Amino acid sequence: MTTIAQSLHDQTVATAAAARRLAAASTEVKNAALIAIAEQIESNSASILRANEQDLDAAKRDGLSFHMLDRMTLNEARVKGMADAARNIASLDDPIGEILEHRELPNGLDLEQVRVPLGVIGVIYESRPNVTIDIATLCLKSGNGVVLRGGKECIITNTVLAGIVKDAIESAGIPRDVVLFIESTDRALVGEMLEMDDVIDLMIPRGSADLVNFVGQNAKMPAITGGVGVSHTYVDASADLNKALAIVVNAKVQRPTVCNALDTVLVHQGVARDFLPRLATEFGVHDVELRADGRAMSVLGALAGGAHVSPAKSDDFGTEFLALIASVKIVDSIDDAFDHIVEYGSRHSEAIVAEDAETVERFLNEVDAGVVLANTSTRFNDGAEFGLGAEVAISTNKLHARGPMGLKEITSYKWKVRGQGQIRH
Amino acid sequence: MTTIAQSLHDQTVATAAAARRLAAASTEVKNAALIAIAEQIESNSASILRANEQDLDAAKRDGLSFHMLDRMTLNEARVKGMADAARNIASLDDPIGEILEHRELPNGLDLEQVRVPLGVIGVIYESRPNVTIDIATLCLKSGNGVVLRGGKECIITNTVLAGIVKDAIESAGIPRDVVLFIESTDRALVGEMLEMDDVIDLMIPRGSADLVNFVGQNAKMPAITGGVGVSHTYVDASADLNKALAIVVNAKVQRPTVCNALDTVLVHQGVARDFLPRLATEFGVHDVELRADGRAMSVLGALAGGAHVSPAKSDDFGTEFLALIASVKIVDSIDDAFDHIVEYGSRHSEAIVAEDAETVERFLNEVDAGVVLANTSTRFNDGAEFGLGAEVAISTNKLHARGPMGLKEITSYKWKVRGQGQIRH
Repeated sequence: MTTIAQSLHDQTVATAAAARRLAAASTEVKNAALIAIAEQIESNSASILRANEQDLDAAKRDGLSFHMLDRMTLNEARVKGMADAARNIASLDDPIGEILEHRELPNGLDLEQVRVPLGVIGVIYESRPNVTIDIATLCLKSGNGVVLRGGKECIITNTVLAGIVKDAIESAGIPRDVVLFIESTDRALVGEMLEMDDVIDLMIPRGSADLVNFVGQNAKMPAITGGVGVSHTYVDASADLNKALAIVVNAKVQRPTVCNALDTVLVHQGVARDFLPRLATEFGVHDVELRADGRAMSVLGALAGGAHVSPAKSDDFGTEFLALIASVKIVDSIDDAFDHIVEYGSRHSEAIVAEDAETVERFLNEVDAGVVLANTSTRFNDGAEFGLGAEVAISTNKLHARGPMGLKEITSYKWKVRGQGQIRH
Repeated sequence: MTTIAQSLHDQTVATAAAARRLAAASTEVKNAALIAIAEQIESNSASILRANEQDLDAAKRDGLSFHMLDRMTLNEARVKGMADAARNIASLDDPIGEILEHRELPNGLDLEQVRVPLGVIGVIYESRPNVTIDIATLCLKSGNGVVLRGGKECIITNTVLAGIVKDAIESAGIPRDVVLFIESTDRALVGEMLEMDDVIDLMIPRGSADLVNFVGQNAKMPAITGGVGVSHTYVDASADLNKALAIVVNAKVQRPTVCNALDTVLVHQGVARDFLPRLATEFGVHDVELRADGRAMSVLGALAGGAHVSPAKSDDFGTEFLALIASVKIVDSIDDAFDHIVEYGSRHSEAIVAEDAETVERFLNEVDAGVVLANTSTRFNDGAEFGLGAEVAISTNKLHARGPMGLKEITSYKWKVRGQGQIRH
């Protein structure tokens, strides 16, 4: 190990030890720490904004895109938003100590399945500084230590935020080492983190598909490989086309750069002639580029000659666009839609628009994805929308947690067995 | 890919497709299949025993140990036991379709968290043929497809059993492909299985620590790395020493070759003088070799000169003996015991014997293991003993399932969202 990696490992060992103490902390102490974080964010607003200015100056010099700069930028309202987020986590039920199952065995043994923290969670993330607060507060409330590796572009802001968090939790009597923020932007440290399965129990990458895949393939510990959503909305023959139009447009345009935004519309051939021209027109209004399969092109007719409609290439299906682009395909039946989703979906967010109740239930039952939705926008696959408070990630794994991951989803459990001298025969 | 690997992949694709149909099967159909398995095991008892004779003849020629031969051997009672096990799984609640959470959001969206199968589970196991039936029936009831890779030594018996299972489930209207038994004993196929993360959702190795570690390190899909238990029992100053003696001896001798058997006894210095000589004598009666640390040696005095007591070497702590051997160490406090368990334990089964209630609770809360036990034998860390029916494994992972894994522990969940046209603002 290099010196810097050894130092990171030593610090993570300290985080793991601190996390064992945090695991025994009462709800009251954890909530006091969360409130202290909120208060200290507010009282340090000016220094947070100054740090953010420095990051933004550097980012502008480095020529980062407007979109990136926007994600990085803090203002008073956004700082207030971080404080509110910490207070919100304080208001949620403490998952730790929850008894998931309790049973007395015929031999008198008392069996209790109790929710416990995972241990130490490593998070690698990019751009938005509020992620630092979201993750640190979720981990604190759920009794987990956390190793935070933020993006280079926000390193000054994130360092200030992490310092505030550490001071605040220490003021509440929790060891400051439960939160470890990596201040070095040395890229090699990411690789080193992924080797530390002796001290990091779970790795969560939040960022590009490349980052998520890299972590999934290289982490020695378990990793949540989520956040990449190739999302379909199937418009059934029984659909209310007004609803369908509103839902599909919302799923595409309300925030096109995120994982639960729509990528592909599958339209039943029975309604394609009515629906597709309206969709193309509405997408045109919102500057959405429509890439249509051969059948859809012919249905679209004259519209297909417009600026916003072009023939789909093969890789326009199965692609997460993260932009104002959508592909569309006509299918003959719900089974064709299933086949397409099995082949091209990423098991993230899959929706149907249909009035026929039986068709809706078939879709919800048979489509294999973390979140399946009927008659609503895929944009609702979100921890805050689900009422989980915040989320650390949206998982497309099938093991452990699936879909939005809030407090409960970053816990484990243990079995406690209480006896009076029972032995096995 | 080699031809044989390609063929395995093709068959596993068929299993995955069949598993999607099984996922929608009713409880009645699955139970009918399980009863059919039980009946066909009984009516084919003679051919199962003939196949087992052939395996045993080969094993004897190959010079396998008495212990191995015993594990492999079937007789009428053991065949009946397999049929009973299948009937028992039929009697358990169907985990699939269970609603884990249900909530209506303020915007009217109806949110349901529903238990679903994982998909396809790969299992690599050794020797005991009843494992073929246990795993196939647990997977069937939980709606999962399964790829079974049994040990070479039981290949003829397991092939017959797998054929019976496939015929039985087909007779109940479930596609026979949901169960895939690998008839080739080509070792390279294990490596090929571990690459098939496109069709196998979870890998479960059951066997030696080497096998478990190999799968854990090489599987591209998630793997349950359990089954290796370095188990401690801590005898506190407040212990009832009669209970302690019975519990420690039971944990060591009742079945020494399994993962939940005791490996190390930690004895509080306050009771060491009373307890250790009695333990050494009782272990002597049961032919248990005791390896004692320096302080325990001096307490044991004259007994330490006996045939069954010798000084512990450093690797006698942290070793899973799987034999009539135990190490013993005197500790000054419960905190010393914690430190020892953190350093040497494998988070599998950890026990305390103590009458002081506060000490018991500290141990149950602070020791980080899948199953923590007070005043009882570590041998109770077992799916059947816990009332889970059978078990596919005992997990020492902290993610997904921990401890004994029965039906629920080989499932996932999905979120179903039902709307009436809601869009996100």
